[in-house]
Amino acid sequence: MNLWYTEQEAELIKLSFRTEKVLFSGQSEFQKIDVVETVPYGRLLTLDGCTMVSDHDEFVYHEMISHIPALIHKNPKRVLVIGGGDGGTVTELTKHAGIEEIILCEIDGMVVDLCKQYFPNVARGLNDKRVKVNIGDGIAFIKKMKGELDIVVVDSTDPIGPGEGLFSRDFYKSVAAALKPDGIMVAQSESPWFSKEILGRIQNNILGGFTHKKSYVGAIPTYPRGLWSWTMAANVPFDQRDFDRARFGKIKTGLKYLTEGGITAAFEIPMFFREKIGQLEG
Amino acid sequence: MNLWYTEQEAELIKLSFRTEKVLFSGQSEFQKIDVVETVPYGRLLTLDGCTMVSDHDEFVYHEMISHIPALIHKNPKRVLVIGGGDGGTVTELTKHAGIEEIILCEIDGMVVDLCKQYFPNVARGLNDKRVKVNIGDGIAFIKKMKGELDIVVVDSTDPIGPGEGLFSRDFYKSVAAALKPDGIMVAQSESPWFSKEILGRIQNNILGGFTHKKSYVGAIPTYPRGLWSWTMAANVPFDQRDFDRARFGKIKTGLKYLTEGGITAAFEIPMFFREKIGQLEG
Repeated sequence: MNLWYTEQEAELIKLSFRTEKVLFSGQSEFQKIDVVETVPYGRLLTLDGCTMVSDHDEFVYHEMISHIPALIHKNPKRVLVIGGGDGGTVTELTKHAGIEEIILCEIDGMVVDLCKQYFPNVARGLNDKRVKVNIGDGIAFIKKMKGELDIVVVDSTDPIGPGEGLFSRDFYKSVAAALKPDGIMVAQSESPWFSKEILGRIQNNILGGFTHKKSYVGAIPTYPRGLWSWTMAANVPFDQRDFDRARFGKIKTGLKYLTEGGITAAFEIPMFFREKIGQLEG
Repeated sequence: MNLWYTEQEAELIKLSFRTEKVLFSGQSEFQKIDVVETVPYGRLLTLDGCTMVSDHDEFVYHEMISHIPALIHKNPKRVLVIGGGDGGTVTELTKHAGIEEIILCEIDGMVVDLCKQYFPNVARGLNDKRVKVNIGDGIAFIKKMKGELDIVVVDSTDPIGPGEGLFSRDFYKSVAAALKPDGIMVAQSESPWFSKEILGRIQNNILGGFTHKKSYVGAIPTYPRGLWSWTMAANVPFDQRDFDRARFGKIKTGLKYLTEGGITAAFEIPMFFREKIGQLEG
C-alpha cells in the first residue's frame, strides 16, 4: 500500500512521510489524535493534523526545552510542565538528580494514555516517583500557585486550538507569579520562519510577565519548517554562558542532540530571526 | 489551480510547496532543470527534482558555504567555486574586498543562463569584474591547478547524478593539490540526518586529501531534512574561533543568517551528527 502521512501548514507547505500503518485515530474532548508508524522517522503522534513527536527525532525538542533551562537555573528543585502530555519533557527533566518534584499539567488525558501505550520510551519518565500528573487546564492550574516554582516549562501546541491561551499575556503573567523570584520560564515559541507578526506577538506577550528573555533554536526535521525556537524568560538577568557545567557532565550520557558547546551556541540565533523578534545580542 | 511542487527523498519523505506557476521546465545535457514560482518560498530552482535554491532562503546556504571559509582563511585572494552555477556562492564571495579573483567552474551552462534570467539577485555576483565563469567539468579543471588557490568551494549537488565525482577521494586529492599550503576547502556535505554510511564515506574521502577537517551546520527549510552540513578541510590546523572579526564587520550589513557569534556556533554540531562522523570536539 502506498500510504503517506501528510502535515499541511497553512495551505502552503506539505511534509509527508511514507507510512506503514495507522495505529490509532480518534477524537478526544479537545482534539483529533493520530498515531502512525512511518518509515523515515518511526512512530509519530499528531494532534489536529500537526506532528508533535516522532520516535526518531523527539530528542531534539525534548532535550532543548528541558536541559537548557534546568542547567541555566542555579539549583532547580520544583518544576511544572504545562502541556507536554507525551511525557518527553518530563523524561528529560528526571535526569537531573537535584530536581525533587516535577508536576505535569496536561489538559488532554487521552494524550497521556496513548503516549504511555504507543511511546513507552518517550513517556517513561512519567513513572518516576518525583512526577505528579495532573489532567486539567494549565491556565487555571497555574493561577493557584504563587512564588513556589523554580522552572515552568510551557510545552504547548501551536497558538491555534487548545494551546491558544498558553501564548497570552495574562498566562505569562500567571507563570511569572507562580515562579520564585529567581525562577525561569521556558516556552516553545514557534518557527523562526513564521511571520514577524506571529513571532512578535508571542515575544511581546512574554514581556507582559517578564523583564528578561532570550530565544534559542534547534532543528527538527519532522516539522514543516525544520528550524524551531524556544524562549527563556525570567525577572532576574540570566546568562546562557553560566550554565552548570558540572551538572551537564552528569546528564550528558545518552543525550543525542545537546553538547556542552551547543548550549550557548543555541542562543546564537540567525540574523533574520533576531530582526523579527528584536533580539540583537546573543 | 491547486498546483504543488514536490521533492521526494528516497521514497520516504516528500516536501511540497504551493506553486503559482512553472516558469521553465527543460532538460540540459546533464540534468532536468525546473524553475517554479512557489507561494511560501518564492522562486525555486530544481535539478533532477531536488530543490537547489529558493529566493526566500538561499541566503542560508550561500552565506554558510562562503563567508565561513573566507573569514577563517587569513587573507584569501584567489578562490575557485566548483558547481554553484546559480551564482549565489560567488555573489557572497564578492562581498570580500580582499578577494582578487573568483573562478566559477560549473558543468552545466544552462544552469548559469537560467539563473541569470530567473534569479538575477542570486546571480548578480557573476557580473563582478573579479569573476571568471568557466563552463566545464570541475574534476578535469582542478587537475590543472597546482598550489595556487586560497579557497576551493565545492558547491555540488548530491552524490548521485552529475555531482557524484565531486565526493570522491581522488577529487579531494586534486583539490588539496590545487590549494596553496595554507589553503582551505569547503564542501557541502549533506544532511546530518542522512545515514552514517553516506556521511561517513564523504568524511572518509575528504581525509584522502586533507589532514584537518571540521563540519558545521545550518538550517534550510526548503530541503526535506531541514538541517544541512558543510565541511571545511585543510592541511594546516585551523580554528573557527580565529576568524577575522574586522573583516566580518565590513561584510555583515545585508547578511540575513550569519552573525558574529553564529560562526563558531555553527561548528557546535549536534551529538548524533558528531557520533556519525567521529567529530567529537567542536
